[in-house]
Amino acid sequence: MPIQAISWSPSGAVRILDQRALPDAEISRDLESGDSVVEAIRQLQVRGAPLIGIAAAMGLVAALRDHRAAPRARFLARAKELGALLNAARPTAVNLGWALERMLRVADGTPGDGADLWERLRVEATAIWEEDRAMCRRIGEHGLTLLPDGANVLTHCNTGALATGGIGTALAPIYLAHERGRRVHVYVDETRPLLQGARLTMWELGKAGISCTLITDAVAATLMRQAKVDVVLVGADRICANGDFANKIGTYGLAVLARHHAVPFYCAAPWSTVDATLSDGELIPIEQRSPAEVTVIAGRRTAPEGASALNPAFDVTPARYVTGFVTDRGIVQPPFSERESQS
Amino acid sequence: MPIQAISWSPSGAVRILDQRALPDAEISRDLESGDSVVEAIRQLQVRGAPLIGIAAAMGLVAALRDHRAAPRARFLARAKELGALLNAARPTAVNLGWALERMLRVADGTPGDGADLWERLRVEATAIWEEDRAMCRRIGEHGLTLLPDGANVLTHCNTGALATGGIGTALAPIYLAHERGRRVHVYVDETRPLLQGARLTMWELGKAGISCTLITDAVAATLMRQAKVDVVLVGADRICANGDFANKIGTYGLAVLARHHAVPFYCAAPWSTVDATLSDGELIPIEQRSPAEVTVIAGRRTAPEGASALNPAFDVTPARYVTGFVTDRGIVQPPFSERESQS
Repeated sequence: MPIQAISWSPSGAVRILDQRALPDAEISRDLESGDSVVEAIRQLQVRGAPLIGIAAAMGLVAALRDHRAAPRARFLARAKELGALLNAARPTAVNLGWALERMLRVADGTPGDGADLWERLRVEATAIWEEDRAMCRRIGEHGLTLLPDGANVLTHCNTGALATGGIGTALAPIYLAHERGRRVHVYVDETRPLLQGARLTMWELGKAGISCTLITDAVAATLMRQAKVDVVLVGADRICANGDFANKIGTYGLAVLARHHAVPFYCAAPWSTVDATLSDGELIPIEQRSPAEVTVIAGRRTAPEGASALNPAFDVTPARYVTGFVTDRGIVQPPFSERESQS
Repeated sequence: MPIQAISWSPSGAVRILDQRALPDAEISRDLESGDSVVEAIRQLQVRGAPLIGIAAAMGLVAALRDHRAAPRARFLARAKELGALLNAARPTAVNLGWALERMLRVADGTPGDGADLWERLRVEATAIWEEDRAMCRRIGEHGLTLLPDGANVLTHCNTGALATGGIGTALAPIYLAHERGRRVHVYVDETRPLLQGARLTMWELGKAGISCTLITDAVAATLMRQAKVDVVLVGADRICANGDFANKIGTYGLAVLARHHAVPFYCAAPWSTVDATLSDGELIPIEQRSPAEVTVIAGRRTAPEGASALNPAFDVTPARYVTGFVTDRGIVQPPFSERESQS
């Protein structure tokens, strides 16, 4: 079984596996406060669009433990403050705002005082996590048709057990195909600058005994040209109504290369990743991260002192490049309507 | 003026700037023997297709210093041995074999004993270096038309003063445009795994006061989509008769992306990079380097112990993706004939 990226600690804190330390060390951290959850999300100790939604929901509960004795109004006010704090941790993934909005709506709709509301929120956060786990498995099942015995998949970044509450999004079909005895081989883009492919995907696929080969991001084009890639599977941080989607920087280039080489290109994500309030990808806020993530690797400067660098964390892939969206509801095509995305 | 990557030491050794140490430290090394030149080429202390040709020619001379007293036959035999040794240092760049063949042909054609032949070889190696410097400048002049005031160029790897005996190949037009007061901005692919863009191109452009921005390799697609790139300029390690060419891994993907976004894509190289004995790119030997260059960065493992990785140093770009070849003879189109390539 793949590893577990998040859980409750015995005292009710959010227990995470610190993903910055992988693959060198497996370090668990208990996040006790809203601030510590925000920091963990910002520093990518916990990352992956579905997982940061779960972490925020659970973090809200952990941070509200001390307010259980508060009267209803004060509890709700504090919950809203914490929600705003957590929601500002990172801008691109829709799951963060989605999970927090759901939590606050549930709090609002629950009668009683702090203790009642808190208990309801704890149940809701656990439900978000468990629903995500179930969605991962359904994504995996729907995606299985893409992976016949002997399939060669190319993937980008990390979209597995370390990015979700379950077996992942784009990696879920791979885990299930492996479970059923199909031989699947995965080419893993290292995914500069933060190397989530090298550090995280290689680690979790290796643990699961799935055959995988690490490549630098610039090798993908040549593998496609050599017909060594049967399908490209990536995740998503936000999917617009028209099907344009944001994902880790480098995804758009892969989509263009896949189309050029007639390689099917699938985006796998839970339905909660759809943000039908955005008509198209131009409207997705793209997080710009520190240039130091590009100019310094493992503590060593790789560019001259003072070098300027661009570091967009995500890019937008227009829907027309996507063969299909592998979701918990099946392999679907845009447009995605508001009504569906709220269900 | 750009820096000087190679020269003769006072004692006649090959003096190089150790490119592995850049940008942290500027370390000169004097290569005294054939073995030390081979090691320097293998370890990429000295790199860049034109520069390794020059280094090999100069290395042959440095290594033959001790054989000046030898009779003709013994001197020639030793020269051939050394030529074979040096030629095996790296497989992909044609310049290495080209320069050594030219040196050995000159030795064969020169009358006299060791001292006469050695003196002739010293002159020839210096000529190869000086011709390369002149070719760089002519490449720069022919490429100037591609860089009007305000141009945004994207480049890959290092093709500048650190890759040649002069001002570079793909960087030569940029140096000359800057010299003439045109505002040019360069997006520099960091070029994983060995980061020649980040470490070397950013360093030499910065020294020359040319505006440049470092990006991870996967950012290029998005910049093209945003119309921030007016032209792509790359170098070449070997150009076939039909115009297919080998260059640093990642070049082919850039070519596909450039075509998709209607961005002109030029390959800049001296005519000596043409290997008209090869009809097409399928015949170019592609160097596979150690997986450790991918899995370890700056001494730190980035992938789990035992992770498998692919590390092709080069890829092949078919001629049909190339808008034009910027050479010392002008901006030209294939096919390139045997007769021309020998001149």
